[in-house]
Amino acid sequence: MSKHFASAYWEGNLPKGKGQYKLKTSGYEAPVNFSSRFEDDKSASSPEELIGAALASCFSMALSHALDQADYTPIKIETSAEVTLTKIDGGFIISEIELTTKGNVEGIEKSKFLEIAEDAKKNCPVSKALTGTTIMLDAKLL
Amino acid sequence: MSKHFASAYWEGNLPKGKGQYKLKTSGYEAPVNFSSRFEDDKSASSPEELIGAALASCFSMALSHALDQADYTPIKIETSAEVTLTKIDGGFIISEIELTTKGNVEGIEKSKFLEIAEDAKKNCPVSKALTGTTIMLDAKLL
Repeated sequence: MSKHFASAYWEGNLPKGKGQYKLKTSGYEAPVNFSSRFEDDKSASSPEELIGAALASCFSMALSHALDQADYTPIKIETSAEVTLTKIDGGFIISEIELTTKGNVEGIEKSKFLEIAEDAKKNCPVSKALTGTTIMLDAKLL
Repeated sequence: MSKHFASAYWEGNLPKGKGQYKLKTSGYEAPVNFSSRFEDDKSASSPEELIGAALASCFSMALSHALDQADYTPIKIETSAEVTLTKIDGGFIISEIELTTKGNVEGIEKSKFLEIAEDAKKNCPVSKALTGTTIMLDAKLL
């Protein structure tokens, strides 16, 4: 069992207020704001960007591990995440997360790589927590 | 609808490899590693720390908004998150996320604040995505 810590604040109301989050390990702080989160302004960070980084890193670790466990040699797994926040009746939801991954792996067939990648997508700890959204995966073997 | 981007990589196998994530807006990069994620070494970041920051900031924004909508005046909402990664048969899960929030709010009774805070915990977009884990809330009115 391990524990991980972070914090955040918000001052004022939602449209005009301002806020920030902080990661415990590095002390990294970044502002969040309304327009960057809900509109097209991409000047500030957002909870959704953090969710994307969490899933991309969790998935990359899980895929490397699954390949290694199946006696293949993972050289490098690179993954990007695109997180979509959509307005619905009654608020916003994270409607989908699209993962795109490229695997540099020794001694594996494409079909086996895709099978292991799909399995890692379903079973990494962050995926198992994010069951309220839809995760899609486009996997390529280099 | 808005889109949010991040990326990550992992090199090598899980126990001995190394990796990093990157947030698109700021370009912030941080290393992730096995011992900081699954053991007690807290020298590096982790997907779980990012999940904590995502939920803490999403919840703080949602609570401010809900208070404002109910005609109270949110001055500041401060939230910390503790994310627990637990080993189970077959792997790891994010077993729980504990939120602790302090609200500086004008003109509200404690019971009403707690009611609105519980509602924000259930309905913020990140909470609605994280239905595969248990989110707990300790809310205090300042």
